[in-house]
Amino acid sequence: MQLGVRLRFQKFEYPEANPEALPEGIDPEEYIIGTYYMSFPKGMNPFEITQVLALEQSTGTWLPVPGETPEVRRKHVAKVVGVYEIPDYEIMVPQEVDWRNFIVQIAFPWRNIGSKLSMLFSTVVGNISMAPKLKLLDLRFPKEFVKGFKGPKFGIEGVRDVLGVKDRPLLNNMIKPDVYSPPDLGAKLAYEVARGGVDIIKDDELLANPEFNRIEERVPKFMEAIDRADEEKGEKTLYAVNVTADLPEVLENAERAIELGANCLLVNYLATGFPVLRALAEDESIKVPIMAHMDVAGAYYVSPISGVRSTLILGKLPRLAGADIVVYPAPYGKAPMMEEKYIEVAKQHRYPFYHIKPCFPMPSGGIAPIMVPKLVNTLGKDFVVAAGGGIHAHPDGPAAGARAFRQAIDAAMQGYTDLRKYAEENNLQELLKALQL
Amino acid sequence: MQLGVRLRFQKFEYPEANPEALPEGIDPEEYIIGTYYMSFPKGMNPFEITQVLALEQSTGTWLPVPGETPEVRRKHVAKVVGVYEIPDYEIMVPQEVDWRNFIVQIAFPWRNIGSKLSMLFSTVVGNISMAPKLKLLDLRFPKEFVKGFKGPKFGIEGVRDVLGVKDRPLLNNMIKPDVYSPPDLGAKLAYEVARGGVDIIKDDELLANPEFNRIEERVPKFMEAIDRADEEKGEKTLYAVNVTADLPEVLENAERAIELGANCLLVNYLATGFPVLRALAEDESIKVPIMAHMDVAGAYYVSPISGVRSTLILGKLPRLAGADIVVYPAPYGKAPMMEEKYIEVAKQHRYPFYHIKPCFPMPSGGIAPIMVPKLVNTLGKDFVVAAGGGIHAHPDGPAAGARAFRQAIDAAMQGYTDLRKYAEENNLQELLKALQL
Repeated sequence: MQLGVRLRFQKFEYPEANPEALPEGIDPEEYIIGTYYMSFPKGMNPFEITQVLALEQSTGTWLPVPGETPEVRRKHVAKVVGVYEIPDYEIMVPQEVDWRNFIVQIAFPWRNIGSKLSMLFSTVVGNISMAPKLKLLDLRFPKEFVKGFKGPKFGIEGVRDVLGVKDRPLLNNMIKPDVYSPPDLGAKLAYEVARGGVDIIKDDELLANPEFNRIEERVPKFMEAIDRADEEKGEKTLYAVNVTADLPEVLENAERAIELGANCLLVNYLATGFPVLRALAEDESIKVPIMAHMDVAGAYYVSPISGVRSTLILGKLPRLAGADIVVYPAPYGKAPMMEEKYIEVAKQHRYPFYHIKPCFPMPSGGIAPIMVPKLVNTLGKDFVVAAGGGIHAHPDGPAAGARAFRQAIDAAMQGYTDLRKYAEENNLQELLKALQL
Repeated sequence: MQLGVRLRFQKFEYPEANPEALPEGIDPEEYIIGTYYMSFPKGMNPFEITQVLALEQSTGTWLPVPGETPEVRRKHVAKVVGVYEIPDYEIMVPQEVDWRNFIVQIAFPWRNIGSKLSMLFSTVVGNISMAPKLKLLDLRFPKEFVKGFKGPKFGIEGVRDVLGVKDRPLLNNMIKPDVYSPPDLGAKLAYEVARGGVDIIKDDELLANPEFNRIEERVPKFMEAIDRADEEKGEKTLYAVNVTADLPEVLENAERAIELGANCLLVNYLATGFPVLRALAEDESIKVPIMAHMDVAGAYYVSPISGVRSTLILGKLPRLAGADIVVYPAPYGKAPMMEEKYIEVAKQHRYPFYHIKPCFPMPSGGIAPIMVPKLVNTLGKDFVVAAGGGIHAHPDGPAAGARAFRQAIDAAMQGYTDLRKYAEENNLQELLKALQL
């Protein structure tokens, strides 16, 4: 009997143990559904290729080996549940088409993985990411898998409770210059922007714990500055301390920062890996919100034909790992991103996701007050305005820069798109000057 | 406040009532997931367009109207759960791209529809089928929806039980010529092919109950011919009587045929509509298998950019409606269809689908004995070989033609791909002569 016949027979005789199924043939509670873009040269069978991928990422072989019994397969094999071509050729592939394009869906038994982000990555991105044209676009998680995660400790409502701000977007400021010494310089700026009305101050992602600007020295100075500002303005300010480092230093940094009074943490989650973000978020002794910074994300999402889509790498995954606030690119300033993707990432942060709390999207990159109505128009009120140079470059100083942003937020919340009109009607000099920049 | 702002706000304030969600935001038991190919000119937001489609096919409007309360939406609105572009642009759509291509997934609340194939079609194909480039590729049905269907009364095992044939593909013959009179001509051929070893004889889809060849006259003659043949060969034969007609005639034809002793029915299910196939299959008084014929299917599936994919129109849907055997195109003879799609349709007939029994795929169109090993190689043993002219054109007559096919089936089941070798080794004259054609 020829090999081909035997393989085919096996495939059709034990469907429940083989790497293909109707979507109805799987228990939705037992599988994570991965959605991929895939392209390959004409002449290959897309359904067979997808099966090979499913095998590669589960029981591991496409030829029978002794240990891979039908029972092993039944329990552990990933299954192809959808192969969709664009466009959907039925009769023949046209002569001029060299590469065929597909969206495929593979169901991975989540118990192969457990509720682990590391093994999830090895499974759904893993070896197959080395294919010439393959991009992970989406993951659908069953409830039982997600039960193993705590998600954001605070989430949108929790951060709002801490700040006492209910009905408007929050305002964040990055200290500029990004990297500096001594710490006093930053603390002085922090005082200015906080008293101007900033809700959250964050370290730059490039400033964590270098020898010229230690967390130990920086945090007390910033917290003292913020305390003074808070008393003055009658509002509360968070300071997100960048604790990014290797292990175990990142955890030690977090512990140290909190001992010193930090009320928020910042971590470059793709530089440390998701497990570090998760460990910080699920640590019961860390009772402050966590901000997750996007750097490195472009290496995953920018290619249209490889990597991992922005909606996952900047959206659903950091939320699942426990970020309360996720910094990500805004399309209106210096960051290149399609507006539709920027909106979709925010949906991933905020839409119903079992028990996982919604987190704040924080669109970032060259944001000026004039862009605030656009941000509100596209994201509503549950987001954080990420303002950096837009605050620090104000002609009347950082406090005025912060006030200009707060005025822009008020205008947008009242439905104004013409900020100049609003500023003139209300005689708001800080906003008027900011708009002239 | 501008309209744009109001719409966006609404969208983000009541996510559970709006036509978009994370896949995890919906209860998989409450929704039918439709997967579509979609293409439209650059400059439109794909997520918004898909929302408009979801609204169009559920609560019906994209602007607030008084009756569409959040409660109505929460319960009845269809939700966008996936929008995947090929390739997945993140930064910008390249200048040279005029039309963008997507696979989108929409979740339809199945209780809007009930377990009805007619309302299913109106919902998932419906008005949106008039879009310039939109094709329904797949439907995922939740268990509760499918519980309302009985599916095939016999299915693969049931038809095998009736025939007493366990371990090989079945052999079907279409009487040729397709349309003829008087009925005696067909009955004579039926006797020949049945005694030669055919398991199932079917009327042509173009011969149902015309005045020159009435079911009333034809069925008794065929059943008498088959009885004689069965006694002679020691096997059983089914005769699938074409009862296709308008209402209520189709139901009367079925009743009449069964009264007259017919042991199988044939219906052109896309010419009558799915509800007729379902009514026949779910009628308790009809205790015979039902064969469903593919004609008209091409109008749905041939276009790569519109209509309904072959895997649904020829695969999952006739099975759900209750067909025990589905006639569909084989890629090896005169019917044009990609081999990969022909295999996928068979999977839809046979893979696990809740309580719905698997049904027989019957690949058809210019099938000769030499193609049988290919059919077995790709489909295993659970299918029906559809032989028409390949039997009737045998130089030694239809009985010899049927025997040649049975010999080809035996050879393929023993793993032979070289039928000539098998025929020579076993001195099978009928097969040798058939191979010479």
